[in-house]
Amino acid sequence: MLVFQKYGGTSLGTLDRIRRCARRCLGVVASGNELVVVVSAMSGETNRLIALANALAEPAAELDGASSHKGPWVAPRKGGQAHNRELDQLVSTGENVSASLLAMAIHQAGGQAVSLAGHQLGMRTDDAFTHARITDIETSRIRSELAAGRIVVCAGFQGTSPGGDITTLGRGGSDTSAVALAASLRADVCEILTDVDGVFTTDPRVVSHARKIDRLCFEEMLELASVGAKVLQLRSVEVAARFGVPIHVRSSEHQGQGTMIVPEEESMESVVVSAVALDRNEGKVTVVDLPDVPGTVAGLFEALAEAGIVVDMIIQNAGHAGHTDVSFTVPESDLAEAEALLAARGDKVVTDPGICKVSLVGLGMRSHAGVASRMFRILATEGINIDMVTTSTIKISVAVAERYGELALRALHDGFGLAGPVEPSGDSAGDSAVGSAPDQA
Amino acid sequence: MLVFQKYGGTSLGTLDRIRRCARRCLGVVASGNELVVVVSAMSGETNRLIALANALAEPAAELDGASSHKGPWVAPRKGGQAHNRELDQLVSTGENVSASLLAMAIHQAGGQAVSLAGHQLGMRTDDAFTHARITDIETSRIRSELAAGRIVVCAGFQGTSPGGDITTLGRGGSDTSAVALAASLRADVCEILTDVDGVFTTDPRVVSHARKIDRLCFEEMLELASVGAKVLQLRSVEVAARFGVPIHVRSSEHQGQGTMIVPEEESMESVVVSAVALDRNEGKVTVVDLPDVPGTVAGLFEALAEAGIVVDMIIQNAGHAGHTDVSFTVPESDLAEAEALLAARGDKVVTDPGICKVSLVGLGMRSHAGVASRMFRILATEGINIDMVTTSTIKISVAVAERYGELALRALHDGFGLAGPVEPSGDSAGDSAVGSAPDQA
Repeated sequence: MLVFQKYGGTSLGTLDRIRRCARRCLGVVASGNELVVVVSAMSGETNRLIALANALAEPAAELDGASSHKGPWVAPRKGGQAHNRELDQLVSTGENVSASLLAMAIHQAGGQAVSLAGHQLGMRTDDAFTHARITDIETSRIRSELAAGRIVVCAGFQGTSPGGDITTLGRGGSDTSAVALAASLRADVCEILTDVDGVFTTDPRVVSHARKIDRLCFEEMLELASVGAKVLQLRSVEVAARFGVPIHVRSSEHQGQGTMIVPEEESMESVVVSAVALDRNEGKVTVVDLPDVPGTVAGLFEALAEAGIVVDMIIQNAGHAGHTDVSFTVPESDLAEAEALLAARGDKVVTDPGICKVSLVGLGMRSHAGVASRMFRILATEGINIDMVTTSTIKISVAVAERYGELALRALHDGFGLAGPVEPSGDSAGDSAVGSAPDQA
Repeated sequence: MLVFQKYGGTSLGTLDRIRRCARRCLGVVASGNELVVVVSAMSGETNRLIALANALAEPAAELDGASSHKGPWVAPRKGGQAHNRELDQLVSTGENVSASLLAMAIHQAGGQAVSLAGHQLGMRTDDAFTHARITDIETSRIRSELAAGRIVVCAGFQGTSPGGDITTLGRGGSDTSAVALAASLRADVCEILTDVDGVFTTDPRVVSHARKIDRLCFEEMLELASVGAKVLQLRSVEVAARFGVPIHVRSSEHQGQGTMIVPEEESMESVVVSAVALDRNEGKVTVVDLPDVPGTVAGLFEALAEAGIVVDMIIQNAGHAGHTDVSFTVPESDLAEAEALLAARGDKVVTDPGICKVSLVGLGMRSHAGVASRMFRILATEGINIDMVTTSTIKISVAVAERYGELALRALHDGFGLAGPVEPSGDSAGDSAVGSAPDQA
């Protein structure tokens, strides 16, 4: 078999952990497999490098007056594209360091390995620095290293632009690197080794008896990733789905089976709800007294889109006296910017950061009626008011007051029978998957 | 003018220092010059990365029994060439980080800049990992960036092998990178910006009234670098001499003129002695009672050469009763290995770590007689015994007891009139050049 393994930053966070990963790699090849490993930067390293870049950018930004910082990936005023190019040259070094160290650890453990940086492993991208898209992968170097009997350790998260510059794929890009490389080399499986045991029926930090899911289809994982499950980057699941690469999300700490994410199978539809997710990072915006004429609402959302603000749930009230109200949710971190932008347009705006989104995901929803009504009944029984609703064929999301979020999650998890048979387990303390922010970069 | 500037790790050691370098770069282009900058890793970074690699290597080395460590650049037992390849992939990231940060700082200061890693700047080498030789430089990318009006910030110390792997040029390789790039782009000057004011008549930490030298020729600088002056890497001076690239060694802290190192000029021969250097890193080996037959001594030095031990000064005593004694010096760090190696051959060996080497360098020696006798007289007056002597056309070195090294340096510095007119200077406290180990990587 040709096996791909992706190790996250926490799994590579210390030299001892790197040694442990090296032993695990040797175990894979000892079983007669070929192995390509994709690594993230050691935990903390990417943030350390970004902090250096931000510190350099700050004094100049102050001279220009206050600048609005959305996050570390937002370019400061000066430099622009040139600054983002340097940011990618800078942060890509983090993965190169961990790749070299893992290759050395494999040597020390008696194996053959070679590390490859983005420009060596043939990962070609466009030149959208800090959030590049993969255009194609030239696999000859990886193939020849595998043929020479080596474990190939690839620096994740990075590629090269047509002009030969270093690019990065954005936060969590190492998952995408791993899946894209696995697809282009037609790997048998792409293992995502992380600090959780797999994908769970919900966040075990909120619902202690959450259960690890054995199998999910790509479509379910896509929906889960989009509603707050952070165990896999959304984009990596999209790539896996498009090319049919089976993903195995499993622990880097032990050899236990995790969650297989595979093309849809017939038996899967029998499960109505696979998982319940909570996304606390939502804020609500209500624009009141909008003129109820065609184009008004479109103009509103065009203005938000131009500012790069992603709108999630939307409801529009019935008009009254030629006016209407529109409510929608945005990432909580964009709430202030959305408010300022709309106020500047002359809109009357009310914002509410105190909401969250609870979602049910399951392939069986396609063929089972009554999931929504059952969901609403469970929430009503707990006295939880529903603010907004959105649905897809295999997902229902509701916005509720943030203080009821955990209660809603527990009630829905048990109300849809996700707890299943209680397993005597004691070794997964502290692990989490859905709704958590584990080992990613 | 096309100006090259090389900044060492201390000059780039903090973000504030990087900002200062950026402002200096802008000053160079504001005067109408084109500028290429070559950077070392931020001080401490290379050592941090090597420590990570060594820590990974150690446990395995212990399992194999004690291993002799000559220094951080010696490969551990396991891995060999593959390990050295990874070491280069690893440590090269240090220069990439400082190059990106300097480019960002230039953006923030309002300038145009682009950083280039080894594989982008066209520095091609052989595949002797950790001590690669430059084979050729493909300058098209640098030229096009200069043509676009950008300051080009090159990661020093690194290149790429014919197979596309990352190589490094060895300790101090950034000087060599800078001079080689300057040569291939026919730069008007290559400035080595460092934490000293220039090349001094001797180590100012030992002789407080040492004087900064205004001009030296390549040949003198080569001799000085070979006898303990660490202000410039020997190899970089060799490259500068071969291609006639003028080097300007100057402070990164202020704009004062430093030391120009240039092709030989007529007036230079009038200076008999330009500088005096002290090298404490010498140890003496004496092999007694060697059979006085042809080939014996050759066999001795062949054995040392095979072990990679560089022999410096050699004296052979007149034979007595068919036997002879041979004494020679080696770097003090190789003394134990030399002793063990010769003892294993059955040689009778006596070693003495307590010696040092004092050298006079000056172009005028070629045409001035009596320099050696004057040197010996000065040392005799101080009661210092001379153990060994070596000479070249523009250099005389003597080995003396280490405890007399500083006294010898002072006596020779003043005895040959190097102090010159006393200048009222107060801003070079703590600076040093000859015999010191400044800002290099």
